[in-house]
Amino acid sequence: MNIQAYLDNQRSRVDGFLEKALPSKGMEPVMLYHSMAYSLLGGGKRIRPIVTIASAQALDYDKDEMLPFAAALECVHTYSLIHDDLPAMDDDDYRRGRLTNHKVYGEGMAILAGDGLLTMAFELCSLEENGKSFSCQQQLSIVRELALGSGHQGMVGGQVMDIQAENHDIELPHLQRIHAYKTGRLIRAAVRIGGIIGGATPMQLEALTDYAEDIGLAFQIADDVLNMVGSREELGKDAGTDEKRGKKTYPAFFGVEGARQLGDQCVERAIKRLDGFGSSAEPLRQIATYIMIRRN
Amino acid sequence: MNIQAYLDNQRSRVDGFLEKALPSKGMEPVMLYHSMAYSLLGGGKRIRPIVTIASAQALDYDKDEMLPFAAALECVHTYSLIHDDLPAMDDDDYRRGRLTNHKVYGEGMAILAGDGLLTMAFELCSLEENGKSFSCQQQLSIVRELALGSGHQGMVGGQVMDIQAENHDIELPHLQRIHAYKTGRLIRAAVRIGGIIGGATPMQLEALTDYAEDIGLAFQIADDVLNMVGSREELGKDAGTDEKRGKKTYPAFFGVEGARQLGDQCVERAIKRLDGFGSSAEPLRQIATYIMIRRN
Repeated sequence: MNIQAYLDNQRSRVDGFLEKALPSKGMEPVMLYHSMAYSLLGGGKRIRPIVTIASAQALDYDKDEMLPFAAALECVHTYSLIHDDLPAMDDDDYRRGRLTNHKVYGEGMAILAGDGLLTMAFELCSLEENGKSFSCQQQLSIVRELALGSGHQGMVGGQVMDIQAENHDIELPHLQRIHAYKTGRLIRAAVRIGGIIGGATPMQLEALTDYAEDIGLAFQIADDVLNMVGSREELGKDAGTDEKRGKKTYPAFFGVEGARQLGDQCVERAIKRLDGFGSSAEPLRQIATYIMIRRN
Repeated sequence: MNIQAYLDNQRSRVDGFLEKALPSKGMEPVMLYHSMAYSLLGGGKRIRPIVTIASAQALDYDKDEMLPFAAALECVHTYSLIHDDLPAMDDDDYRRGRLTNHKVYGEGMAILAGDGLLTMAFELCSLEENGKSFSCQQQLSIVRELALGSGHQGMVGGQVMDIQAENHDIELPHLQRIHAYKTGRLIRAAVRIGGIIGGATPMQLEALTDYAEDIGLAFQIADDVLNMVGSREELGKDAGTDEKRGKKTYPAFFGVEGARQLGDQCVERAIKRLDGFGSSAEPLRQIATYIMIRRN
């Protein structure tokens, strides 16, 4: 399979759903929807929703009815970017080559747009029409996965640890822990939600979860490397911001080459986790490889 | 019944649950839990969770198993206070007589504590153990009510409208709309969630919803009046902040006495909505009355 064509197709599918999911133009409060749409529809590779889709496909489920759940992951991811970019957090002016949300809409509106997107994620997971295609138990499990992956013992917890570790000389296990929370748990939720959508057996869900842990780590390593060596064009923002901010990263521990090798090992391990799946898991396998070679 | 004793008892019940719901002391990330606990356990009348409990009681349900859902409403309410108090929003230094969250923990942590509490609300609604006492359909309906009541077409939407209306000469229907979103929809969710917990029939749920609309309005009117005439001690913060900020309020339209009368009419109407319920709805009736006579 051609992974780039696959990613493009799935991204269009997700984008199409996201555009319809936001309330139609002119609906009050207009400015909130502008602000939410600015970040939600402002590009982005849609890796998390695509991972959800690919995970469901590994179990031979591929209907559009799963898109609300996939989109929910992108809502959570986008809200986290908006809040992370705020002056009180990372204070970034650019994201994906465009001004950050608060630079365009002001801090108050950016905070609320983030809040709105986080809440919308749970709205999407509990839409009445989801009941036509998914059991109540599936839907509730998805809500639980999303809450755990994005909350205090997930992404939010990781962001706190990350801020607290700035300018501190942390050890590798601490760095791994920060990443497991900040990036890993939402990716794990994305994979597991796909598994739940596809009706995974407990054993299949376990294999998918192991796969998710591995690509989550690879994902973060790739991000760290890219932050260090990427061009402004590739990144959509200045390179080396982690270093300037005194953030410990994988390249800081292992050097750029060492970090890349570590990432490649994670990818290899991730692919191995899917041995029990047939060719339907090919997208998941290719995504694992793609993570370490991706740009911006 | 003695409404004050009832409220005290139910508040203890909610407080007891909230204290246990937060991760135990010393768990990482420690500072996040400190910040969340500071606001979540820092007093407050617990009106929303109590309304949920009273609504379930009106349908003769009164088991502690409903507390996760009731607590979820307080998590959402608390997160909204933390974010509203931020410098980029209302910029308040005091809340309930104590420093606001960002004054103690800094803005970044306050934003994350709010995010954590909002996410935790959905975690509480999807706890695995809830399945022992409630059908999957009930739990999923509760998630939906909470998401709708607190999101872009609920509380978050109302907060945006409220900020945008500052220093603008708005008409009464606009003010009513702001309040319906900002305060009303979460209270409606609180009442309806209690109804779902208690297994309300569609007709009962409709009556409860009408009741909720009325007390929601009364609640906002009482808040406006209190903001205007309350003492610093009663409010836990300075009085007259709405006026200073150029916020239109009910007293600004009708005068303090006129606004009070309007609130009393809402309360009367709310009580009338419960005619189909027996004595088990007495707490709901008393809460309606209490809203207009409450202090701080």
